[in-house]
Amino acid sequence: MAGDREAVDSAPRFSMRCIVSESFTPTARTRVVREPHRGAYDRETIYKILDEGFVCHVGFAVDGQPFVIPTMFARVGDFIYFHGSAASRMLRGVSEGLSVCVTVTLVDGLVLARSVFNHSMNYRSVVALGKATLVGATEEKLAALRGFTEKILPGRWNDTRQPNEKELKATSILRLPLTEVSAKMRVGPVEDDAPDYALSVWAGIIPLQLIAGAPVRDERCDASIPLPAYAAHYIR
Amino acid sequence: MAGDREAVDSAPRFSMRCIVSESFTPTARTRVVREPHRGAYDRETIYKILDEGFVCHVGFAVDGQPFVIPTMFARVGDFIYFHGSAASRMLRGVSEGLSVCVTVTLVDGLVLARSVFNHSMNYRSVVALGKATLVGATEEKLAALRGFTEKILPGRWNDTRQPNEKELKATSILRLPLTEVSAKMRVGPVEDDAPDYALSVWAGIIPLQLIAGAPVRDERCDASIPLPAYAAHYIR
Repeated sequence: MAGDREAVDSAPRFSMRCIVSESFTPTARTRVVREPHRGAYDRETIYKILDEGFVCHVGFAVDGQPFVIPTMFARVGDFIYFHGSAASRMLRGVSEGLSVCVTVTLVDGLVLARSVFNHSMNYRSVVALGKATLVGATEEKLAALRGFTEKILPGRWNDTRQPNEKELKATSILRLPLTEVSAKMRVGPVEDDAPDYALSVWAGIIPLQLIAGAPVRDERCDASIPLPAYAAHYIR
Repeated sequence: MAGDREAVDSAPRFSMRCIVSESFTPTARTRVVREPHRGAYDRETIYKILDEGFVCHVGFAVDGQPFVIPTMFARVGDFIYFHGSAASRMLRGVSEGLSVCVTVTLVDGLVLARSVFNHSMNYRSVVALGKATLVGATEEKLAALRGFTEKILPGRWNDTRQPNEKELKATSILRLPLTEVSAKMRVGPVEDDAPDYALSVWAGIIPLQLIAGAPVRDERCDASIPLPAYAAHYIR
């Protein structure tokens, strides 16, 4: 591990905006310590998890007390944008940004082993650390909100009434650069201790998935207005 | 608010184990400030959300840096029990417990309004603050693990090989008393600004639900071993 870090430190430095490596370099804070085989640091894996999710849990600390707030988010480029009224209150007077941990978790299944001890969950999660800042300028906020909306509901932006100036002012969007990030996941079948395979216990996976049901038209939405395709067949 | 707190402070004190009030008293830390109509403090609402969930996000801070880790949990009585290797590492030498925020979020739907600004999410979430401690004694750990397992998969405990001493030692279970807790949720239909109802925009809800698929029998699980009912019809 020390060797890894030396190699990175001695490498030439490029701006992240110009050249983005295929993998994030795990830091002491993002390296998966427990069950290291479940850790992943490559951008493709991490971005795929982020793009399937749309709810994140944002952690921030106030006087040592952590708070964890669920909120909607979207990855746009190498940034996470998230709605953040609670977190944004903490940002007052903090010009350099708020130290946050943004965690995204996708639940894939319950793992029923033959022993209680080997029960587990199949999941994919991403932990991103860094300093979140408010998206400030109006145009930047509009672009962020558009990226955010289009990522969660592609096509929705042009179908709806877009934000006016007053609404933009009332919206807090926070931005976290994706620089210190790791994924952790469990995939695959049950793993039991060798002697336990002889037990007469049902073992297997209960798959779990967040599934969209049939859209429910608003009572005040005229039946002649067609249901958009992105709502009819919503898939993450 | 000051009045509320005075009333509570002047009330006679009982052990939480004997008399539990129907509602949690919101503190400055758990009172829902933004959109207060979405806050709830009654035990029934909060416990119902906790009992439907089985994945929580645990937040803790190390030198001001928050970390948010997903893990499985179960409410047993007036406690949350959760698996906590990452958090338990932080507990070393902290006898009075680790300040945590445990957040449970259930996603119920996307709310597609006529304006971008009024887009939202239907959800139910619980935030619990307090000091988490390790479940230490072997019998207590066994009881916690049993409660935990039975809450997530009722009936599983007796079907499987139960933990031996070595496994119990290798399992970190943390316990958080439910004393400072609040719920926040959004339920119901789209809410648009009055003039926007005239727009020809599809509006409504895309319901979302975590759904269990057909159980997948482990390759090494003999077909003669019957599929238990709790796995065949898994519902949260």
